[in-house]
Amino acid sequence: MRRKVYVEGPGVRVPFVEVGLSGGNDPVRLYDTSGPGSDPEVGLPPLRKPWATGRTQLAAARAGEVTPEMEFVAVRENVPVELVRDEIAAGRAVLPVNRNHPESEPMIIGSRFLVKVNANIGTSAVTSSVAEEVEKLTWATQWGADTVMDLSTGPRIHETREAIIRNSPVPIGTVPIYQALEKVKGDPVKLTWPLFRETILEQAEQGVDYMTIHAGVLLPYVPLAADRVTGIVSRGGSIMAAWCLAHHEENFLYTNFAELCEIFAAYDITFSLGDGLRPGSIADANDEAQFAELRTLGELTHLAWEHDVQVMVEGPGHVPMHKIKENVDLQVDLCGGAPFYTLGPLTTDIAPAYDHITSAIGAAMIGMFGTAMLCYVTPKEHLGLPGKDDVKAGMIAYKIAAHAADLAKGHPGAQAWDDALSKARFEFRWEDQFELALDPGTARAYHDETLPAEPAKTAHFCSMCGPKFCSMKISHDLKKQGMGLKSAEFVAGGSQVYVPLTEVSGPGR
Amino acid sequence: MRRKVYVEGPGVRVPFVEVGLSGGNDPVRLYDTSGPGSDPEVGLPPLRKPWATGRTQLAAARAGEVTPEMEFVAVRENVPVELVRDEIAAGRAVLPVNRNHPESEPMIIGSRFLVKVNANIGTSAVTSSVAEEVEKLTWATQWGADTVMDLSTGPRIHETREAIIRNSPVPIGTVPIYQALEKVKGDPVKLTWPLFRETILEQAEQGVDYMTIHAGVLLPYVPLAADRVTGIVSRGGSIMAAWCLAHHEENFLYTNFAELCEIFAAYDITFSLGDGLRPGSIADANDEAQFAELRTLGELTHLAWEHDVQVMVEGPGHVPMHKIKENVDLQVDLCGGAPFYTLGPLTTDIAPAYDHITSAIGAAMIGMFGTAMLCYVTPKEHLGLPGKDDVKAGMIAYKIAAHAADLAKGHPGAQAWDDALSKARFEFRWEDQFELALDPGTARAYHDETLPAEPAKTAHFCSMCGPKFCSMKISHDLKKQGMGLKSAEFVAGGSQVYVPLTEVSGPGR
Repeated sequence: MRRKVYVEGPGVRVPFVEVGLSGGNDPVRLYDTSGPGSDPEVGLPPLRKPWATGRTQLAAARAGEVTPEMEFVAVRENVPVELVRDEIAAGRAVLPVNRNHPESEPMIIGSRFLVKVNANIGTSAVTSSVAEEVEKLTWATQWGADTVMDLSTGPRIHETREAIIRNSPVPIGTVPIYQALEKVKGDPVKLTWPLFRETILEQAEQGVDYMTIHAGVLLPYVPLAADRVTGIVSRGGSIMAAWCLAHHEENFLYTNFAELCEIFAAYDITFSLGDGLRPGSIADANDEAQFAELRTLGELTHLAWEHDVQVMVEGPGHVPMHKIKENVDLQVDLCGGAPFYTLGPLTTDIAPAYDHITSAIGAAMIGMFGTAMLCYVTPKEHLGLPGKDDVKAGMIAYKIAAHAADLAKGHPGAQAWDDALSKARFEFRWEDQFELALDPGTARAYHDETLPAEPAKTAHFCSMCGPKFCSMKISHDLKKQGMGLKSAEFVAGGSQVYVPLTEVSGPGR
Repeated sequence: MRRKVYVEGPGVRVPFVEVGLSGGNDPVRLYDTSGPGSDPEVGLPPLRKPWATGRTQLAAARAGEVTPEMEFVAVRENVPVELVRDEIAAGRAVLPVNRNHPESEPMIIGSRFLVKVNANIGTSAVTSSVAEEVEKLTWATQWGADTVMDLSTGPRIHETREAIIRNSPVPIGTVPIYQALEKVKGDPVKLTWPLFRETILEQAEQGVDYMTIHAGVLLPYVPLAADRVTGIVSRGGSIMAAWCLAHHEENFLYTNFAELCEIFAAYDITFSLGDGLRPGSIADANDEAQFAELRTLGELTHLAWEHDVQVMVEGPGHVPMHKIKENVDLQVDLCGGAPFYTLGPLTTDIAPAYDHITSAIGAAMIGMFGTAMLCYVTPKEHLGLPGKDDVKAGMIAYKIAAHAADLAKGHPGAQAWDDALSKARFEFRWEDQFELALDPGTARAYHDETLPAEPAKTAHFCSMCGPKFCSMKISHDLKKQGMGLKSAEFVAGGSQVYVPLTEVSGPGR
């Protein structure tokens, strides 16, 4: 049985999902992103309103202050609150909390913490409605999304975002250039700094927690992408590149970056420095266009920090496995350890319709190397807008990647989940195994396809091997017969049964 | 358009799938495992019958001889035939070809060649029929299975295997202990060497190309598994452990290994040395039970080589990412470079129903580190027997993992596939993109869900971003406007537009 429980901390009450187990086994507590549940017409209660302060989390951390948000994530991650504060102070972690989005539950993004997953949703000009997007938001957080990006384009962009923010228990990210482009009817050349600034303020007021800003697509870098197999594949990157070339001027996001910092500081919005020149194919990975931009993102990271503004840095994209580590090492070096936030990366281009898998491989690896948050990829990537099924498929693949990375990094407590499930499996506690699964319903349904009867839920085998060939059943029988006891006898007896093979089994026997 | 083509080599005719492309682009040739197609009642033609010889491929290679099978795989892999011969001679590659399975098309397994994928099929006592299994075989090879293991248990084991072998264009592997156990009505204690020997001969006569032999589960190793979270999870391993403990004698597969070698040499059957003590959970990975057995498998590898018998070595199982590389390094060291053949490994235990994904992550990584063949895992792993949909899901996930590994290893020609697809994507050649996809039908269907009309197949956007936000469209427009030309101007002009940020954008601007 799964149920929601709350753990008390100093001034905070932190939600978890508790999985009750049978047979006297301790319950297992899982990180919970689903929020308290909302009526879409009303929105969520403003949890964080009483905690409001004029400082950013970074400014507070630097002043040695522990905010209620830090207390909350310390309980949530089961780590000392000093670690939370110090990692934020050093810029190695961010706690995205626009003061106008008090509905969100605090969460932290940084390499010393659990690897997080972002889900992209949003309407496009071609398809989708506001209600559908709120439903996708709720769906995504139920499947474990730690943040959600609203990538809506099309006419109802403001209204969609308002509905999403008021109903979101997780931080919301956006790419403001999309709305700015709507305001100039889709012509990148007509974009201006005042128009963009106005758009940022509009979204800041609504409560957007982090924004992707493509300030690293500099005019001299654009030609570096000219001979690529897939050119520029970031929407924001291509828009800014078009603007730069048309005006033959430097990117206005770069030249006005300090003013952006002031606005972000006023709301405690976190930068997500966009990688507008990320590679869109295996062929283009780790090229000069990509790394030139990354150097500029490093420069901008340090500038944002001067303004007490929190920063994440976005990363690729499409990268073959052997080139993944270089991305992390370079980012850590250039960006002073600011959290890396990557899209996959996809480790091959050959499988459209399965890019949740091609990229889960890269995501798990880049997570292991230190990436703090993974932007999911759904099966619809490159083909169309994700529906609910796609959101779920993307979330599951990425929760797997993130957890595999947590295990590989040795995150304290991560392996307890695996151990509890494996123990349930070995002891034929089928219901416990299902309840502990990332997706209990599907695990149960697959089991029931071939052995639907209720007794099979306590059977000491499944249809995969049948009763006679169940290794775990045999293994249990051995244990009952005293495999452990015999062990002691063997060791005491010098393990005499074992004779080097050459002595007992020469040619011809 | 996809079509089957044949490439001629010295005395051989090797099948490929050729993907024809539009717009004057060169066609792309893909490795083809689907075989010539068979009427299940008749079986496939005996392609290799005229090539029969008394030698094993290993003996021939050691004598410097190039067999027709070697010529075939050299064309198939696009490598020099001398490389094929030398890798086989050194034991670093195997070419599994039972002389009684002349229907199969030669293929090679070794770290210098394309990473291969095995699909497990087979009836169990609880479910499935012979005709269904032949259908699964054909289905698996259509989706790219390089070998298929028939893991049937239950009453119709001989008949199922016969139907599978006669219809298989790929090598067939088995685990003979399963049939031996059927012969003693499921009681491991009643197993004997003569009974096992008779079973091996029966399967050898039928044409099984490689057999899993759990000769490394030694009596003194069994107690090492006593305190594991999941004990012994290999069926064959648990059977042999039960036998050893009950008789308090050494594993009869180990003590009679030399005689096994003689039988294998007579048919040119390849050993697949089973890892009966592989870990069944993250908690048990890389433990002493596992590595003790691996040391014995190394010993047996060298003994088989003395008999001119080809050898692969099986590997785990469940391993967290940071412990994967150690498995490969140790196996290469202990087993003299004999091909490693791993089941996944799964990188976390928390996602039953998605273990094709948890394990594709591990499979891709272990492939990159040098594993020669990956045994697929389907979504039904731990829950039930795979049906056709599961076989396909497992195959797709593993073809992705294998190809990602080929890219990471820099296998010559591997990236041409990715580049062709990415180029088609960038040029909005939608039909070419679909045809080049690992699963063309699904890619096309996903695209058509939101933009079904025929003109959308030539549209310069998809429903994901819509026309205004398509980065690739903008990127193309830039290119037309001379992004490349501007590049030259910039470089010539000293890239003067770029000014370090601190100079143009101080605080307050």
